[in-house]
Amino acid sequence: MSEIRKHYFLDEYCIIAPNRGFRPSDFKKTDEASNSKKCIFCKGNEEKTPPATAVYTPAGVTSDEGGVVRDWNVRCIPNMYPALSPKKSSSDQLAEGFGFHEVIIETPEHDYEPSMFLDEEITRLIRIYADRYTFYINKDGIKFVSLFKNYGSSAGASIAHSHSQLIALPLIPPIIKKEMETETCPFCDIIQRESISKRLILMQNDWIAFAPYFSKYPFEVWIMPKEHFPDMSKLSDVSGLAFMLRNVLSRMHALFGGFAYNYAFFQCTDKRYHFHLKVFPKLSVTGGFEENTNIYINPVSPEDAATQLRW
Amino acid sequence: MSEIRKHYFLDEYCIIAPNRGFRPSDFKKTDEASNSKKCIFCKGNEEKTPPATAVYTPAGVTSDEGGVVRDWNVRCIPNMYPALSPKKSSSDQLAEGFGFHEVIIETPEHDYEPSMFLDEEITRLIRIYADRYTFYINKDGIKFVSLFKNYGSSAGASIAHSHSQLIALPLIPPIIKKEMETETCPFCDIIQRESISKRLILMQNDWIAFAPYFSKYPFEVWIMPKEHFPDMSKLSDVSGLAFMLRNVLSRMHALFGGFAYNYAFFQCTDKRYHFHLKVFPKLSVTGGFEENTNIYINPVSPEDAATQLRW
Repeated sequence: MSEIRKHYFLDEYCIIAPNRGFRPSDFKKTDEASNSKKCIFCKGNEEKTPPATAVYTPAGVTSDEGGVVRDWNVRCIPNMYPALSPKKSSSDQLAEGFGFHEVIIETPEHDYEPSMFLDEEITRLIRIYADRYTFYINKDGIKFVSLFKNYGSSAGASIAHSHSQLIALPLIPPIIKKEMETETCPFCDIIQRESISKRLILMQNDWIAFAPYFSKYPFEVWIMPKEHFPDMSKLSDVSGLAFMLRNVLSRMHALFGGFAYNYAFFQCTDKRYHFHLKVFPKLSVTGGFEENTNIYINPVSPEDAATQLRW
Repeated sequence: MSEIRKHYFLDEYCIIAPNRGFRPSDFKKTDEASNSKKCIFCKGNEEKTPPATAVYTPAGVTSDEGGVVRDWNVRCIPNMYPALSPKKSSSDQLAEGFGFHEVIIETPEHDYEPSMFLDEEITRLIRIYADRYTFYINKDGIKFVSLFKNYGSSAGASIAHSHSQLIALPLIPPIIKKEMETETCPFCDIIQRESISKRLILMQNDWIAFAPYFSKYPFEVWIMPKEHFPDMSKLSDVSGLAFMLRNVLSRMHALFGGFAYNYAFFQCTDKRYHFHLKVFPKLSVTGGFEENTNIYINPVSPEDAATQLRW
């Protein structure tokens, strides 16, 4: 039987319709035709992209300014087709599309991605995320930094080689503002509720991972710190978050095999905001109904997803 | 250069980023492996679906109640994997997933769909849409009827044979409510504005089709009546709307060839609401950024889309 569920605290709804009878094996697998020779993000092809603004090497952080750096772990470059651009000619930042758009190449290897990463690799990546977030959020005119990953073409990635993206915006998205309109922090309440629910997946080192009661997508997972802090610039020790993300991704990998997925960091400089991360395999396609109603039909109940992701 | 645009009257944004350099030919084409022999929606396979609740034949409307009807133009059946179900056991309609979910098979032919329809076929289909909408909106407990079409797997269709869907809900979606919170009708204003804009595509018989200033998707088109009325139950003459939809779809077909697309009817029983229809080819995939911000990046400006769709 299906169920219409209201969001924890926003005026949003989703439909949990598990009678639609889907299984993980029914879902689309990632369809990448892997071709590392032509890949512009691969080690050795550094000239095929714009010079890196930041290169993380075994010896520390540098850039391509003094010549292309070859021996890198993670490489940050300007997006070649930027959604927003730093050029600032007028005072109307919206009309001129002001902002920054960076690509974070997470590994020099072509067929390697975060769901397979070792502890040290995922920890390094989270540290770099925090670095880049902090760098951009402090720039003049920037009010919000969206940091996210699309992996696989069905999840919106146009290049197969694993990478994340960062888009720095001159405005705070209205949906983020809306999440701060309650008197007390609603996320602190959600943590209380989900840490004793059947949707709990993992709790460790003051972090919690759960399949939210309000799940728009099948196997959607939210990762949250028990401690209330607004953004990654306040994150001194990244190991707890790294552990959670690696765990959730590798559990999904075990369940789905090679799979397309998205994750996104929800954060803001406003102290009222509660930092969190949403991860979801891209298993379904939205269509006319979601566009019409903003109500998402989810064929897998979060209770069932949590059971499968808990092992 | 890109541009951040605010919605006409809602607190929503999109990014028009035409510098990303896409052309229609870059977009994904529909990937249907057409197999009419096994298709459960094809003429002759009527037994493979639940009995039709309404069958539109050359002789008039009937149903499968007195035995399967073979000679049909359009066939309405209950969805076999319903998102919502009519069974009503408790008073909590949300918790029990109360509603109706119908599939409207638009043609007995397998490789035929509305972008190729003749005038009489599209007119009949719109008339049937109005019929089915009116039937469900008058049912006890139903507050909103979503009527939409997903065509092609990338647009969310799980069956290739052309069909529309109708989901009758026990609530009015919050985004529809929000569109009625202004003092005067904002859509009447939008029609004024767009009928003299460079985004106008077609204006005829008191209907207007345009690429909206606020376009979330590439080649998104809105079709609106100049006259203010809330829903299809008030639509006495369907020929104007049929002409617009057929025109827009066939122009897209000429531009993209076989293509995946969605359309959805925006309507409501509340007299303040202004009936309209949104049509968009499914050319791009959303990802982590849209989930993070609810801001959509659109690689084709509506001004450019209108130029291409105007001929």
